[in-house]
Amino acid sequence: MKFCSHCGHPVQLRIPPDDARERHCCSHCGAVHYQNPKLVLGTIPVWQDKILLCRRAIEPRHGYWTLPAGFMECGETIVEGAQRETIEEAGVDITMGALFSMIDVPRIAQVHVFFLAQLNSLHFNPGSETLETRLCSEAEIPWDDLAFQTVRLTLQRFFADRARGAFGLHQAIIAPGHPAHTTA
Amino acid sequence: MKFCSHCGHPVQLRIPPDDARERHCCSHCGAVHYQNPKLVLGTIPVWQDKILLCRRAIEPRHGYWTLPAGFMECGETIVEGAQRETIEEAGVDITMGALFSMIDVPRIAQVHVFFLAQLNSLHFNPGSETLETRLCSEAEIPWDDLAFQTVRLTLQRFFADRARGAFGLHQAIIAPGHPAHTTA
Repeated sequence: MKFCSHCGHPVQLRIPPDDARERHCCSHCGAVHYQNPKLVLGTIPVWQDKILLCRRAIEPRHGYWTLPAGFMECGETIVEGAQRETIEEAGVDITMGALFSMIDVPRIAQVHVFFLAQLNSLHFNPGSETLETRLCSEAEIPWDDLAFQTVRLTLQRFFADRARGAFGLHQAIIAPGHPAHTTA
Repeated sequence: MKFCSHCGHPVQLRIPPDDARERHCCSHCGAVHYQNPKLVLGTIPVWQDKILLCRRAIEPRHGYWTLPAGFMECGETIVEGAQRETIEEAGVDITMGALFSMIDVPRIAQVHVFFLAQLNSLHFNPGSETLETRLCSEAEIPWDDLAFQTVRLTLQRFFADRARGAFGLHQAIIAPGHPAHTTA
């Protein structure tokens, strides 16, 4: 951020009064521009013993496999956002299930949230952000070609929970030097 | 948003290619400026049968009572953010507990997240955003003078869970015409 989005004058990085962090501040109109983490919402779409994965048609990680997910939009709820992203990326009909994983990625100021979901049909219609969709059993997951660590962790926890017969809520942190610990 | 924060030229509200929503777009440098919901993080600080509340010294809802909470900052995790806000607003030493409530407020593009927490001492040192702190039993909660609906709902669910002897995770939506349903 170089210019004030309110008045168009240059901004300076400084600590406002009664604050503890540097913000982009406009000395012309007085605006303080806060930047905050973003929520990425997605689903684990299940059909019998298989999971629906999408191969990304966009950067970052073009060509790699992911669970359907994307940035939460203003005006929607977390469940609505996760369902919308799944429809946009895979063109599938799903019934939303429980909150499953909530993973901090502080390095890029994101929190990734995944919900369980049931596929209601095998009709897929991938959107412009998806090269192809694929139903994968646990043995068929392309572990070496997954797009994001949060997807890997969510899939690992999903199959572990399925094996023990109970699905929990998993919190985790993806950070350099930080073990990807989870609490269920 | 009236001006591009990258180049300072006026922005226009239009739907970019491969998008479905209006964004603030700069026709000079090509930047697309996305706006996304924000996370508000807080705690339910517990001491024996009492809860710590803070009376707000700032707008909105100056003078009303709240659980310690505030906007998540870039570079921190959700647990770190909730703990930081509790320290900033109440000056207390706490041990963080489980994720307790996650409440959508789509009208203002916010998601409020509260964690259980244990107070480690009765030393309070309210920050500049807090007029006073108070330990309240369930009977002493100032229900008519609470600052936010998400605080009210979280406290209601907390006391209900405590009465039944088990704390769950509560998801809810605060929206006009929308019952504040929760799933535990």
